[in-house]
Amino acid sequence: MQRTIIADCPKKVGEKVEIYGWVDTKRDHGKITFIDIHDFSGQIQVVGSGEDLSALKPQYVVKVEGVVQKRPPEMVNEKLKTGEVEIKIDKVEVLSKADELPFDLGMGTLDLELPTLLDFRALTLRHPKVKAIFKVQAKVLEGFRKAAEEIGCTEIIVPTIAASQTEGGAEVFKVDYYGHKAFLTQSPQLYKQILIPVFERVFTVTKAYRAEPSVTTRHLSEVTQMDCEIGFVQFTDLLDLLEKVAVETIKYAESECEEILDSLGHKKIAFGKIPRLTLREAQEIIKKEYGRDNTKEKDLTPQDEQDLCKWALEKHKSDLVTVTHFPTAAKPFYTKPDPENPKLSLSYDLLFRGVEVLSGSQRIEGYDQLVESIKSRGMNPKDFEMYLMAFKFGMPPEGGFSFGLERITMHILNLANIREASLFPRDMERVDIRFSKLVK
Amino acid sequence: MQRTIIADCPKKVGEKVEIYGWVDTKRDHGKITFIDIHDFSGQIQVVGSGEDLSALKPQYVVKVEGVVQKRPPEMVNEKLKTGEVEIKIDKVEVLSKADELPFDLGMGTLDLELPTLLDFRALTLRHPKVKAIFKVQAKVLEGFRKAAEEIGCTEIIVPTIAASQTEGGAEVFKVDYYGHKAFLTQSPQLYKQILIPVFERVFTVTKAYRAEPSVTTRHLSEVTQMDCEIGFVQFTDLLDLLEKVAVETIKYAESECEEILDSLGHKKIAFGKIPRLTLREAQEIIKKEYGRDNTKEKDLTPQDEQDLCKWALEKHKSDLVTVTHFPTAAKPFYTKPDPENPKLSLSYDLLFRGVEVLSGSQRIEGYDQLVESIKSRGMNPKDFEMYLMAFKFGMPPEGGFSFGLERITMHILNLANIREASLFPRDMERVDIRFSKLVK
Repeated sequence: MQRTIIADCPKKVGEKVEIYGWVDTKRDHGKITFIDIHDFSGQIQVVGSGEDLSALKPQYVVKVEGVVQKRPPEMVNEKLKTGEVEIKIDKVEVLSKADELPFDLGMGTLDLELPTLLDFRALTLRHPKVKAIFKVQAKVLEGFRKAAEEIGCTEIIVPTIAASQTEGGAEVFKVDYYGHKAFLTQSPQLYKQILIPVFERVFTVTKAYRAEPSVTTRHLSEVTQMDCEIGFVQFTDLLDLLEKVAVETIKYAESECEEILDSLGHKKIAFGKIPRLTLREAQEIIKKEYGRDNTKEKDLTPQDEQDLCKWALEKHKSDLVTVTHFPTAAKPFYTKPDPENPKLSLSYDLLFRGVEVLSGSQRIEGYDQLVESIKSRGMNPKDFEMYLMAFKFGMPPEGGFSFGLERITMHILNLANIREASLFPRDMERVDIRFSKLVK
Repeated sequence: MQRTIIADCPKKVGEKVEIYGWVDTKRDHGKITFIDIHDFSGQIQVVGSGEDLSALKPQYVVKVEGVVQKRPPEMVNEKLKTGEVEIKIDKVEVLSKADELPFDLGMGTLDLELPTLLDFRALTLRHPKVKAIFKVQAKVLEGFRKAAEEIGCTEIIVPTIAASQTEGGAEVFKVDYYGHKAFLTQSPQLYKQILIPVFERVFTVTKAYRAEPSVTTRHLSEVTQMDCEIGFVQFTDLLDLLEKVAVETIKYAESECEEILDSLGHKKIAFGKIPRLTLREAQEIIKKEYGRDNTKEKDLTPQDEQDLCKWALEKHKSDLVTVTHFPTAAKPFYTKPDPENPKLSLSYDLLFRGVEVLSGSQRIEGYDQLVESIKSRGMNPKDFEMYLMAFKFGMPPEGGFSFGLERITMHILNLANIREASLFPRDMERVDIRFSKLVK
């Protein structure tokens, strides 16, 4: 007999079916046992009697043969897509047993502390509400690629082992590379720029690494970046493009995951016209509306970001805000200073629901200016030989931007900690298993 | 004025246009200068006179204003898509100059030794035939994702920093992880298996690292893997699925890149019914048809792989061959032994045009058997705590496979060395710049 997926069972009333899945919950009513079983497509109630059934426990993997039957009207479960039917069991076969669970996976919400959630990651990911996070994440990825292709970008694969630090700073992981010193890339930045004279417009989904020696709710040591880089553009074109890609990415995930998001109590994202502010303008709004004078600061504070998003939602019905013109000295060496005021740069952040999820800039395209900028940050141009080669041989005006996949996922779903938005998060406390728990 | 992309110029005869691009070649004919300029969409001839034009050199980035005009019939270039027109220049502006090139990028084929090709990677990637490789590669990626989604796989992001070695062996890169020992993953294997009870069917495109201490034409230190893992399948289902995904991936790239492939002299891929042979059967064919008795060997030799593909193409009109049942001892610990003969395993390789491009297996799903298998390879089950957790709590029969992106690209295009199929290849001799050239 062929497998029937659970979602198809309501179409097969009166027919014999074979389903495969995991035991969720079991309810023994004297002689009769009710069992909820799920596969990737949904959940269904199966009913029967006997020792075989009583022996089943949560997370057992089973093959069930039985007949699909209508439930009596008073037994219909309207919350379940298959709630009008159930399967009367003829035969059940256990394909794989499970140890007793350390917590109840059958509850509507998995109410665990974060360390426990991660200590048992192989198990907690199976909970419907945890799993749902990564269904949404998969659609963010797909949405980004569609949006990037739509603006003419070619997909590129960039290396993650590099000889130089992309962004400067000490927060870099060292790799022993055949006895030579190498680093895990802090971003795909240098490589996507090298490829502008090859493809003009490129995108990549790749890993970036930061040896961040602190534990916060919004940083991971290994993240997924979704990057675009675009040739022959000027600053305002870039702002148009990044907003277009951001909106299409998020809209796609929201529309593809409508049902999942509804089940998680999702608040619809507001896509009003995105306000564009310089950092200074943003700080003036903070001062005027929220009474904090941060107009001398080099960046927005986390509280500023939250308030600015609140303001944008109220005044512009937008969950997104673009902020531009951060101080040149606070940005990476490849960021182009504004020719009209070189202390400020042609840079931008995109804020989404209270946090920065994207950043980017117009880049320096002139070789000499770039070499000077590298030196001014105390770095050695010799370490950027391959990168600089691209600028020796004809580089157009260009710019780009970079989304953090986990950050976007976190804020679409209103998660409290970015670790919840990574299947297997990496931070200074663990690599799957907590270091403090390791006995070596 | 708005930019006109070069491919659109033939539609604009008589109109004034503004194009942006790179100078390819310049031909001075006394007072008149002919210049070939390209952007991402194509190449066009521009014609004019004056010092501004004479000063242009290859790879200069320019903005050209001029009028599109029909060429005289005797001047039409049928090899060029825009060959019926040219642009009469009004004004040219240099956006970025280029140093004198170390070799001629204007030749039809870039006839450089591999080390030079890589020493000047930022420049050599601009050659149309080099660039074309990565246009094809982008379509392989897209084709794989389409095929994986079609068989119901959810996209997952897996970590590349891990606490244990996936495949055993010494060929692993060590990372200093906040003072702890960690490794770059040799494959996404352990993580995709953990996710089977979450999503049932998953795919990922991710990096894999091998500290291979040798220089060959078919190994890289950092590769891109395209992986699927599928729950509730048995061995023959897996063979059906891997062949389906492989064929659809390759067919998609071939059909999307028809024009590029034609220009590279591509030989159409033969998609006859794929022969399936056990290793022993394959070795018998080698013995009978090619006179080499390798029937005692644990694997196919490179020559065997080539001959087997020759045989499959002749006898079955297929550029693909599936080989199964490799010795259990020669395969990774998670490979399932054949219950009918445990010395052989339920494993498979897919050969394509003379080389293995995919491998995989049915996996061991039983916890106890898996722990035994880890121990039998001299590894410590303690190092696989998170992985083994998934097997403690209900794991269905499952299996999967893994394609090498660079290998497939290499053999679709008949490249001599896998380094040509990686934008920025990593091997023991270089990270962009050759170690022997570095003066530190």
